[in-house]
Amino acid sequence: MAHIKVPEGIPGIRSLVAFRPETGKPLYELAQVLLRQESPLSTAERELIATYVSSLNECRFCTLSHAAAARELYGENRETVDKTLENIDGSPISPKLKSLLLIAGKVQQSGKAVTEQDIAEARKHGADDREIHDTVLIAATFCMYNRYVDGLASWAPTDPEVYKEMGKHLAERGYKFIKKD
Amino acid sequence: MAHIKVPEGIPGIRSLVAFRPETGKPLYELAQVLLRQESPLSTAERELIATYVSSLNECRFCTLSHAAAARELYGENRETVDKTLENIDGSPISPKLKSLLLIAGKVQQSGKAVTEQDIAEARKHGADDREIHDTVLIAATFCMYNRYVDGLASWAPTDPEVYKEMGKHLAERGYKFIKKD
Repeated sequence: MAHIKVPEGIPGIRSLVAFRPETGKPLYELAQVLLRQESPLSTAERELIATYVSSLNECRFCTLSHAAAARELYGENRETVDKTLENIDGSPISPKLKSLLLIAGKVQQSGKAVTEQDIAEARKHGADDREIHDTVLIAATFCMYNRYVDGLASWAPTDPEVYKEMGKHLAERGYKFIKKD
Repeated sequence: MAHIKVPEGIPGIRSLVAFRPETGKPLYELAQVLLRQESPLSTAERELIATYVSSLNECRFCTLSHAAAARELYGENRETVDKTLENIDGSPISPKLKSLLLIAGKVQQSGKAVTEQDIAEARKHGADDREIHDTVLIAATFCMYNRYVDGLASWAPTDPEVYKEMGKHLAERGYKFIKKD
């Protein structure tokens, strides 16, 4: 049960947004701009970064929902998601994305953990300023969402089908804030 | 020097927002709603929670700027800020705010670190759902801002006067997003 009284039967962050729509609105807008609007990183790559950071934070709801979204967006290469979560080195992603995931993992520990060498390594593989910026901000943002969802002990469904549907929804429609009056 | 090319002479998060205003807008809106709009916690208390979490994350820019804002908002009780940062137990804040800062400190570690007991302790001292919600979200949000600011190595001025001015500005005007074209 959640630590505060939120509407029943609504999972994860959606229950918290229903409790406090005023903060929910900018939280959803941030996700939409960062994960869906223009970026040199594909939507699949951005959802993979979000999933990876959520898995490091052991946030079950965010990991399962964003992994499902990433699988939808990777399409016929959907196995990329699970291969990356198992072992980044052995995953079929590009060396550039591997170096960006390394940076995301550092940000999950602390912003100060990111070194000049981490950035140089990403640049060596072709990463530009926007890709580095978006990677750091996605990682930082999921350190927030993960803490919000788990810090208030919001409900994480156990049925895998629920996350599959959520993944399709997020892949097709993105992060739309809908205030229920 | 920052890890990416941001406008020179602009400190901290403002330089990152200038680099990417599209994400800057919801980031500022979130801070404004969470730290300035209606809440059972005073603006001074909310800035104190933000400062405390930033200090735990060792984010120099966020700690110094939000401590300065909190001092302005505490007014004649401005010494409360430094006493709390030195030692929560010995600080002149209420037992309720102490228990909320304990929750904020747990969120800084991980959302999952917050226990039923932490919540029960806060309720014993009179904390309600909104105070618990706002505390957790402020703590989670500063885990994001701190990582964004330090993960891209943005500029943190060394002159204490700069932070004093910043604190006055934040106390008087809040978090207004201004897009420079």
